Amino acid sequence: MDAKTPNDSLTILTDLVLPGETNYLDNLFGGELLARMDRACSIAARRHSRRIVVTASVNHVAFNKSVPVGSVVILEAKVSRAFKTSMEIYVDVWIEDRQSGQKTKVNEGIYTFVAVDETGKPVQIPQIIPETELEKERFDGALRRKQLSLILAGKLKPSEATELKALFL
Amino acid sequence: MDAKTPNDSLTILTDLVLPGETNYLDNLFGGELLARMDRACSIAARRHSRRIVVTASVNHVAFNKSVPVGSVVILEAKVSRAFKTSMEIYVDVWIEDRQSGQKTKVNEGIYTFVAVDETGKPVQIPQIIPETELEKERFDGALRRKQLSLILAGKLKPSEATELKALFL
Amino acid sequence: MDAKTPNDSLTILTDLVLPGETNYLDNLFGGELLARMDRACSIAARRHSRRIVVTASVNHVAFNKSVPVGSVVILEAKVSRAFKTSMEIYVDVWIEDRQSGQKTKVNEGIYTFVAVDETGKPVQIPQIIPETELEKERFDGALRRKQLSLILAGKLKPSEATELKALFL
Amino acid sequence: MDAKTPNDSLTILTDLVLPGETNYLDNLFGGELLARMDRACSIAARRHSRRIVVTASVNHVAFNKSVPVGSVVILEAKVSRAFKTSMEIYVDVWIEDRQSGQKTKVNEGIYTFVAVDETGKPVQIPQIIPETELEKERFDGALRRKQLSLILAGKLKPSEATELKALFL
Amino acid sequence: MDAKTPNDSLTILTDLVLPGETNYLDNLFGGELLARMDRACSIAARRHSRRIVVTASVNHVAFNKSVPVGSVVILEAKVSRAFKTSMEIYVDVWIEDRQSGQKTKVNEGIYTFVAVDETGKPVQIPQIIPETELEKERFDGALRRKQLSLILAGKLKPSEATELKALFL
Amino acid sequence: MDAKTPNDSLTILTDLVLPGETNYLDNLFGGELLARMDRACSIAARRHSRRIVVTASVNHVAFNKSVPVGSVVILEAKVSRAFKTSMEIYVDVWIEDRQSGQKTKVNEGIYTFVAVDETGKPVQIPQIIPETELEKERFDGALRRKQLSLILAGKLKPSEATELKALFL
Repeated sequence: MDAKTPNDSLTILTDLVLPGETNYLDNLFGGELLARMDRACSIAARRHSRRIVVTASVNHVAFNKSVPVGSVVILEAKVSRAFKTSMEIYVDVWIEDRQSGQKTKVNEGIYTFVAVDETGKPVQIPQIIPETELEKERFDGALRRKQLSLILAGKLKPSEATELKALFL
Repeated sequence: MDAKTPNDSLTILTDLVLPGETNYLDNLFGGELLARMDRACSIAARRHSRRIVVTASVNHVAFNKSVPVGSVVILEAKVSRAFKTSMEIYVDVWIEDRQSGQKTKVNEGIYTFVAVDETGKPVQIPQIIPETELEKERFDGALRRKQLSLILAGKLKPSEATELKALFL
Repeated sequence: MDAKTPNDSLTILTDLVLPGETNYLDNLFGGELLARMDRACSIAARRHSRRIVVTASVNHVAFNKSVPVGSVVILEAKVSRAFKTSMEIYVDVWIEDRQSGQKTKVNEGIYTFVAVDETGKPVQIPQIIPETELEKERFDGALRRKQLSLILAGKLKPSEATELKALFL
Repeated sequence: MDAKTPNDSLTILTDLVLPGETNYLDNLFGGELLARMDRACSIAARRHSRRIVVTASVNHVAFNKSVPVGSVVILEAKVSRAFKTSMEIYVDVWIEDRQSGQKTKVNEGIYTFVAVDETGKPVQIPQIIPETELEKERFDGALRRKQLSLILAGKLKPSEATELKALFL
Repeated sequence: MDAKTPNDSLTILTDLVLPGETNYLDNLFGGELLARMDRACSIAARRHSRRIVVTASVNHVAFNKSVPVGSVVILEAKVSRAFKTSMEIYVDVWIEDRQSGQKTKVNEGIYTFVAVDETGKPVQIPQIIPETELEKERFDGALRRKQLSLILAGKLKPSEATELKALFL
Repeated sequence: MDAKTPNDSLTILTDLVLPGETNYLDNLFGGELLARMDRACSIAARRHSRRIVVTASVNHVAFNKSVPVGSVVILEAKVSRAFKTSMEIYVDVWIEDRQSGQKTKVNEGIYTFVAVDETGKPVQIPQIIPETELEKERFDGALRRKQLSLILAGKLKPSEATELKALFL
């Protein structure tokens, strides 16, 4: 099974914010954005693994800027690291100014998906070879985030999270 | 006002087909696909003109292959030709096979948008310089399609449609 | 198989424009209107053929007037001409003024549907006998539009489009 | 203010049942049908009164037959009786068999709407002159239903409901 | 089959009113509220009967106050009385003031559901033992409402509706 | 400003999974569940603070079990800890078996919301006094999760995260 680059799974979802997708402050409703991010990430996970994929967890999503109705919103999702049967996907969210065309980062999210066969059993997936500086940084952080996630879920003791522990020493 | 290339307005909308978006044959419902095409084209028109844009007409959409539930659908929209205040946008639609990753063309559509100011008055837009063979072919056809559209709408006599007339002589 | 009149397939879809169906200018979103037109046309096609029907193409939709939120929108679809297994459907769209009750035409669209059997194979359908002046005019134009559509799709040479050619000579 | 006939407010809403509108038995979801009935009735109320209208109550809706996915559903709403500022609307619901074209009644509902001015104050509306046998029967029943509704809401004593009382004596 | 209390089926559905769910006066659209009420009542009916349930009728829904966009809406549904295979469900609707936290009643509805087996045949359900004053009052009224409903549907003669008749004598 | 208990903000959202909300495996679509969780959490945040609230981040959501179409899904959200202007909300998700009535935990999520005034400026909120064992445990963990979140966002150095650091030593 040949390793792949993050770019092999790059998924772009460009779309408008219509009034039916806003909260009562006329900004894109948080839940609708989480749903779009989930769709983009699941396509990236599928492109990397070429398998059926299911959402395992949302590790972190930060809402930095609100997204007003009428905006053009661009989501870009890429697999940042693959483990045995699961993979971490980073999705970056921008809006684009109509007049200047300039893109502003509004949001970023980290999701984990698992690849499964037709019976729902996890299956092995290709590894990731990061290329850019940002991809390398995210690749390195992925193991720490996985350990964190396991600790939060009560499936790993902090003392066993060697990667993470090193951060604090 | 500097001319632009079709690629300057390239808009990619990759998304899933969920069960809530199907017809009763479990394929993507035609109306939902038309709506997605309209959104992708309106973003391309906005990127070219950097103005508010409104749909003027759908010139042609051919449904060649049905799109089953669970598919990854990719829409790519680009401005094919700009007139004084209106522009023609081509949108190509593919689905992607999960296992092989191969893309199959299922659909293509031609839309016309007009750029307007805040009061709704049409405003001038940059011209298009086509680059690839396909872009040149679509650019050349755009004038004929515009004349056809005017004839269909009763705003042009066939005898005055010089470009189109030449096709048949 | 007895011929039918356009009125035999008349389909009326009267509905409101709710805020969840608008664009960011508070008018009915173009994509939502295209979806409603597709639904009305598919019912008209089904009433004419009494078969399963699938959208083959959208031949032309002109957006003449915008439709503000809160409007009552009336779609009227009728088969304008039947070919061997495909049929052309015209859909006219009006809005109705609340105080005066007056109807204003805002839009019109031309769709093509194909009748198929349970296996998806095209099947023969009844012919159309137009009755009113408008129905006769649309019936006559349908063959020219079909030829145009085939030319645009690269399936017919302009020189072979005898009906259409006659327009320009 | 001239009286009107029920037919003056006739509103027809013909539409498909798509998979996104079903319950988990693959029939049209009851809540979605109630919403379509509410939209059709509100248009009929608006056509009769030429005013802004608001739903006052749903008096009765009987679900006799389930509506399978893929059905063509036809709603026909008409004002059955007008009081001072409120009106009763009857909406009949049919499905249409694809092969035979035969219509089957599946459902019927009775709604009450009030006409209001821009400030939300109830305003007077035209009276109704029923024409057909069915319209006369529904017109006669409307007063009894209004009394029932007031009793249910605790706004009328049974002893004062003279019309209704007569039924039981 | 042991009797149950209304509280055994209590179903709470707390949710926001988003702009995509409003009418053109920026209040919660009546049809959307009817749909939410139907969902809450069907869960209460299922909790009481532990069976598949289907909507039989909407007996009465009064819209007393409009619900502005951005509101928190609380639906509370409980079975008020069980008959042989059908049950009446009451659903009360409140909004909650953001600053004071105070709840205001805006709406109330009465629905009837039938419990069925896998083949759609009605099946027997547990009876109800009301506890509070309000529950007892609703329990007592349920038989009269059932008779009314049967009279309205033409399935019972007024002279045979003994419970109801007593009201007017 | 008086402190409150987690129970003061308890928000219950019980609803069905309809076919229009599923993924192509006929389970509740992950994005739709994230949206429901966001709505329940935002109501809990609003009940605690009695202020306008905006989503700041999703800290962790674990998808343990899939939720099949037709399920009754119960979300229970409570504020687990309040900081100066932000608060952490825990949302637990269960499904309920139709026949036995038994609840199974399928999912849990941790969200952070900020309370703001009309101009969008963060405002101070009441503190939390946890009551049950589970509430105390979640209260204690909240500070560590906040530090983690700041580290992930690059706004805090690991060496300064004293609470968190203690976990690993």
